Amino acid sequence: MPRQPSNMHTATALAERFALGLRGDGSVEIHGVGTLAGAGPGQLAFLANPRYRPQLADTRASVVVMGEQDADKSSETGFAGVALVAKDPYAAFARMAALFEPQPVRAPGIHPSCDIDPSATVADDAHVGAFTSIGARSRIESGAVLGPGCIVGDDCVVGAGSELIARVTLVTRVRLGHRVRIHPGAVLGADGFGLAMDAGRWLKVPQLGGVVIGDDCEIGANTTIDRGAIEDTVLEEDVRLDNQIQIGHNVRIGAHTAMAGCAAVAGSAKIGRYCLVGGAAGILGHLEICDRVVITAMSLVSSSIREPGEYSSGTGLMDNRSWRKNAARFKQLDELARKIKGKPKQ
Amino acid sequence: MPRQPSNMHTATALAERFALGLRGDGSVEIHGVGTLAGAGPGQLAFLANPRYRPQLADTRASVVVMGEQDADKSSETGFAGVALVAKDPYAAFARMAALFEPQPVRAPGIHPSCDIDPSATVADDAHVGAFTSIGARSRIESGAVLGPGCIVGDDCVVGAGSELIARVTLVTRVRLGHRVRIHPGAVLGADGFGLAMDAGRWLKVPQLGGVVIGDDCEIGANTTIDRGAIEDTVLEEDVRLDNQIQIGHNVRIGAHTAMAGCAAVAGSAKIGRYCLVGGAAGILGHLEICDRVVITAMSLVSSSIREPGEYSSGTGLMDNRSWRKNAARFKQLDELARKIKGKPKQ
Amino acid sequence: MPRQPSNMHTATALAERFALGLRGDGSVEIHGVGTLAGAGPGQLAFLANPRYRPQLADTRASVVVMGEQDADKSSETGFAGVALVAKDPYAAFARMAALFEPQPVRAPGIHPSCDIDPSATVADDAHVGAFTSIGARSRIESGAVLGPGCIVGDDCVVGAGSELIARVTLVTRVRLGHRVRIHPGAVLGADGFGLAMDAGRWLKVPQLGGVVIGDDCEIGANTTIDRGAIEDTVLEEDVRLDNQIQIGHNVRIGAHTAMAGCAAVAGSAKIGRYCLVGGAAGILGHLEICDRVVITAMSLVSSSIREPGEYSSGTGLMDNRSWRKNAARFKQLDELARKIKGKPKQ
Repeated sequence: MPRQPSNMHTATALAERFALGLRGDGSVEIHGVGTLAGAGPGQLAFLANPRYRPQLADTRASVVVMGEQDADKSSETGFAGVALVAKDPYAAFARMAALFEPQPVRAPGIHPSCDIDPSATVADDAHVGAFTSIGARSRIESGAVLGPGCIVGDDCVVGAGSELIARVTLVTRVRLGHRVRIHPGAVLGADGFGLAMDAGRWLKVPQLGGVVIGDDCEIGANTTIDRGAIEDTVLEEDVRLDNQIQIGHNVRIGAHTAMAGCAAVAGSAKIGRYCLVGGAAGILGHLEICDRVVITAMSLVSSSIREPGEYSSGTGLMDNRSWRKNAARFKQLDELARKIKGKPKQ
Repeated sequence: MPRQPSNMHTATALAERFALGLRGDGSVEIHGVGTLAGAGPGQLAFLANPRYRPQLADTRASVVVMGEQDADKSSETGFAGVALVAKDPYAAFARMAALFEPQPVRAPGIHPSCDIDPSATVADDAHVGAFTSIGARSRIESGAVLGPGCIVGDDCVVGAGSELIARVTLVTRVRLGHRVRIHPGAVLGADGFGLAMDAGRWLKVPQLGGVVIGDDCEIGANTTIDRGAIEDTVLEEDVRLDNQIQIGHNVRIGAHTAMAGCAAVAGSAKIGRYCLVGGAAGILGHLEICDRVVITAMSLVSSSIREPGEYSSGTGLMDNRSWRKNAARFKQLDELARKIKGKPKQ
Repeated sequence: MPRQPSNMHTATALAERFALGLRGDGSVEIHGVGTLAGAGPGQLAFLANPRYRPQLADTRASVVVMGEQDADKSSETGFAGVALVAKDPYAAFARMAALFEPQPVRAPGIHPSCDIDPSATVADDAHVGAFTSIGARSRIESGAVLGPGCIVGDDCVVGAGSELIARVTLVTRVRLGHRVRIHPGAVLGADGFGLAMDAGRWLKVPQLGGVVIGDDCEIGANTTIDRGAIEDTVLEEDVRLDNQIQIGHNVRIGAHTAMAGCAAVAGSAKIGRYCLVGGAAGILGHLEICDRVVITAMSLVSSSIREPGEYSSGTGLMDNRSWRKNAARFKQLDELARKIKGKPKQ
């Protein structure tokens, strides 16, 4: 089973194309990528984290992209291959690795099995895979790719160059910008969780808003983004959401913010730009987080954050026996503190 | 792109239809809804939370539904538009907003692409969208709507007036009551997680039960509800589950309970009526929670709850530096408590 | 609606087939299974947990599988039915219950609606259900079952005897071993969450690896397993994942490990063999967990674990008022500890 396409690039060609320094024989041919430890001849690896520097001596990679400092110290590191020199070796590697990524064929055209509403429009150069439904008044723009099994409901837009990998659902009133990438199982534009208790029964509050996704956003597998109750749920440009994230109705996420898997944001929260939200972190509704805030994994944000910085909640991991003792004491903590501070119990 | 259908209702007509008081010119025409801050002429807004009262002075909404107290104080609040007066303005708004909700066309009939087992029955007035499968002995009742891409396995019932928005999977032995609403990506009736360790390998325990969903329940996008091991997993009537909730096998959830996104309930837990479970909260298996219990977000319920009330676990959010210090001390908490209480370490 | 097929087995036949002891009339006919409390005549129940021993007296089950001790004490327990005697009654029950599990008909062959790339291969005796896509160079091996609505991308393998229940997505370079079972909504082989910040924007790092799933693994509904960045994400044999679990790129999970619903594992974590990970537990990236580690529900593993045993984090559940007081004190914990230990504040 071919794992990588039959691409070949010389070290010289890579250095020129990506404006990198070159140390060693530029004629060496690269056919794929690998890790420092796992790569073989004909492969490109990278060194970004100094922790892996000792692996340079033994790597079988033909070419390694690294920082200038590492390239200068080849006598110390014992690296005998060809070095490509980059200011940011990881970013340079990412760009070069893209050359070796197998791309599924997505020829323009609409698969004959599709069910497309007569009022929908699909650009001539868009690809629409098998078993895809497109609803009333929706628009698929130039170069967009809809993999198999997608459902695009009414009044949606898939912007130019966007890609729904497969089995993505845009329920209704979802507008994607350009170059948005959505992974399988994601559901955008489902009803927000709006309920009013009325005479002992739940009354559903209609969800009349939509979802707006900015350019260059990426949405992970099985992530859900509800549409707004009245106004829209909004992701600004270049927001990156990992898998299984839940975004409630009327949330707004600022540009360039990234969230790791299983994070959850309740309705009407506003998150700033360049934030990093750790895995399975929770953000309560109707609060605001300013720009450049980092939330560590599994922390719960229960009030607004006005200062950039890193925030956490929870406790550290312990062996269960010790944890039980300490957790039992947590229930007495206020009482203990009163003893220490000499205040009588209220 | 039309965001709302061409509905028009006068303030007088709304007041009569929903039994509301009217202050001002009842002939004003309403074409849609908005927030107090965002609505324009021809739109209906609401005031339920006193926090938003200051917005009354500046709202451009033609009509605002509000409580009697607010309607009486128009000189103070500066509100110059038409007021609809309701005992519960939010519920009244929810009912009126439904008039302006665009409804996708779901004409009765079965899309020709569908794959329906000959032993299944589909009511004449049900709608079955494209690329839907219906298995052996399953029954789709009157007025039910199955959007595109649904999979209904064997021995299932979709009750009268129920709606599977799109791409919903009912695996096997799932029986929905009337007017149940299920959002895309939800999976009901998959195997429960039943395993026995046997000679160093996992042995699968067959999951022979089903899932029973009561009338008027709502199930969010990508939520999963496993079928029972022997008996059924049960949601009583009017249970409301948000997105990405996990319900283990043989769980029972009482009527009118609502759970926010990403909550998880382990097998055989029994949850009472009128409970509210916060986002990403966890409930361990084989325990009981009585009626009218509130669990706050991300709390873990690890033993049965016998008294109504609000329950929590976890710690508050801190800047990471302070958190690290305090979390380190948590690991010494039992030792510290012994010091305070003067007991020697065991 | 028939809940169980028309199978019949006598107690004698079951005893012989599964090498169990028999006490009582072996000619009694069994048509299905039930719980001790819920079973009726003609049904088989089991007693594994001593907590349920009192139910033996009143059970209406015709046959109960139990341990030798319980079988010996029928005068004490008041059990009057037929006993099957097993060393491990739960495992014996699991094996017998499988006889009564209704199996959907999955005849060999490819449904005419499917969209299969000409370079893919499907074994003659495999079943491929409606609306399934199979991509380039993928291989469906002997006896494999693909339920309706599955998507198998390029360069995938579905090993012999494996079953994708319905609506499973294998994105690309996913190789399943033999007898793997995957539940609806699961997504394997989506892009890992690889990003580099580059001049103020996110740069996507290509995800060139695949996913390798060992023999006899089971993957729950709506679980996601990303493909590796360079090398593969790997589950060894007999790994059991419940619903809505997130496995990041390049994670490796050892044989026979089981994880409960909503657990999340970040990229490049290595988990040992025979581990048990509780519901909604989190495991940070790039760490190692040795064999036979138990993580309790909703705990966060933030550093490597080198010793087998049970580990926990978090705090216990309290009524909200007490919790608020204690959680407030947690924020002063370092200060309090310094007071107790007599050290001045740094």
